[in-house]
Amino acid sequence: MRLREKLKLYVITDRKLCGDEVKCVEAALRGGATSIQLRLKEAPTSEMVEIGKKLRRLTRDYDALFFVDDRLDVALAVDADGVQLGPEDMPIEDARRIAPNLIIGGSVYSLEEAIAAEKAGADYLGAGAVFPTGTKKDSYVKIIGLDGLRKIVETVKIPVVAIGGIKPENAEEVLKIKGVAGIAVVSAVMGAPDPEEATRKLRAIVDKYLG
Amino acid sequence: MRLREKLKLYVITDRKLCGDEVKCVEAALRGGATSIQLRLKEAPTSEMVEIGKKLRRLTRDYDALFFVDDRLDVALAVDADGVQLGPEDMPIEDARRIAPNLIIGGSVYSLEEAIAAEKAGADYLGAGAVFPTGTKKDSYVKIIGLDGLRKIVETVKIPVVAIGGIKPENAEEVLKIKGVAGIAVVSAVMGAPDPEEATRKLRAIVDKYLG
Repeated sequence: MRLREKLKLYVITDRKLCGDEVKCVEAALRGGATSIQLRLKEAPTSEMVEIGKKLRRLTRDYDALFFVDDRLDVALAVDADGVQLGPEDMPIEDARRIAPNLIIGGSVYSLEEAIAAEKAGADYLGAGAVFPTGTKKDSYVKIIGLDGLRKIVETVKIPVVAIGGIKPENAEEVLKIKGVAGIAVVSAVMGAPDPEEATRKLRAIVDKYLG
Repeated sequence: MRLREKLKLYVITDRKLCGDEVKCVEAALRGGATSIQLRLKEAPTSEMVEIGKKLRRLTRDYDALFFVDDRLDVALAVDADGVQLGPEDMPIEDARRIAPNLIIGGSVYSLEEAIAAEKAGADYLGAGAVFPTGTKKDSYVKIIGLDGLRKIVETVKIPVVAIGGIKPENAEEVLKIKGVAGIAVVSAVMGAPDPEEATRKLRAIVDKYLG
């Protein structure tokens, strides 16, 4: 059950909101993030690996899990716990074959995608967008709402983390859905004036529901 | 010696010059390319994997080696023979640790980089730019000239493929350097009106010197 527990407060980096991933991740970890994901699209691989190694050390110090978005090569190079794969990333089956010991998260935007990702071998799902979000503008991102999230949680057996527009004001609605493993946030932490305090506030809400 | 032999005519894709990698690679293989490299920077990973799998099948059919530029994850997913790593890609040491059985090529732009890449565990080098090139505009690309290439070939023990602005008109100057394993081209094939014929012409020159 360690994976499920560690998914309860999952914080994702965003260079546009916080240019210094190491600083903002450390603040999030001090505030109580239980998982960190490096999401860095337009940087050379060498830079991803360099930052990833720093985040790997930090997440170990704070006993948090560390994931890399999209890039299985970077996840392996920095000894991350896992990789997060969406519709435009490597197929989950390929990733599982290459890296049998890595935790694989699937990003899903519908019940159908959730079922397919579980079948393909995902260990957990990031399901959304629960609320409208300004962070991810890719065409495949759809708003599934609280109802869409509930259906996914009720259908799959693997842990489901809710993502998309979640902030202190709406986090409780999400966490009231029975079986949700946790919440994932980008701008609520990375765009906050004080990322540590923002994380602490979210953690207090999460702990009310997920103990 | 199979690796060295297969490096003699190394053709690299370029979406800006040829938007249909599968079609142009097949033409290059018909024309006699002995190695193919997929170089695709700004595409989703899912697309890289999809195209990579097609190029893997083609290169097997033509008994050519298949390499992926930068992306070790894609190389592993499509069962490529190797990966090509430059100064802004994953460190060679990390790649070697993750994928001990993959052929690793190092892209080097000076004698110092060549020595370092060999020491780090590269199986072969792509050394350049021998001549000015319009393809790679990254700031780390330097013109080493024929003299720079000769020094690298004389110094390292691993095979060295010459790259950068090579075309039928200047290929012989490169191949006259004793010990050069082969030539790598982008625009001479991908930008040619008839990529198959362009490759065939280069192959005839290569075979004159490398048998």
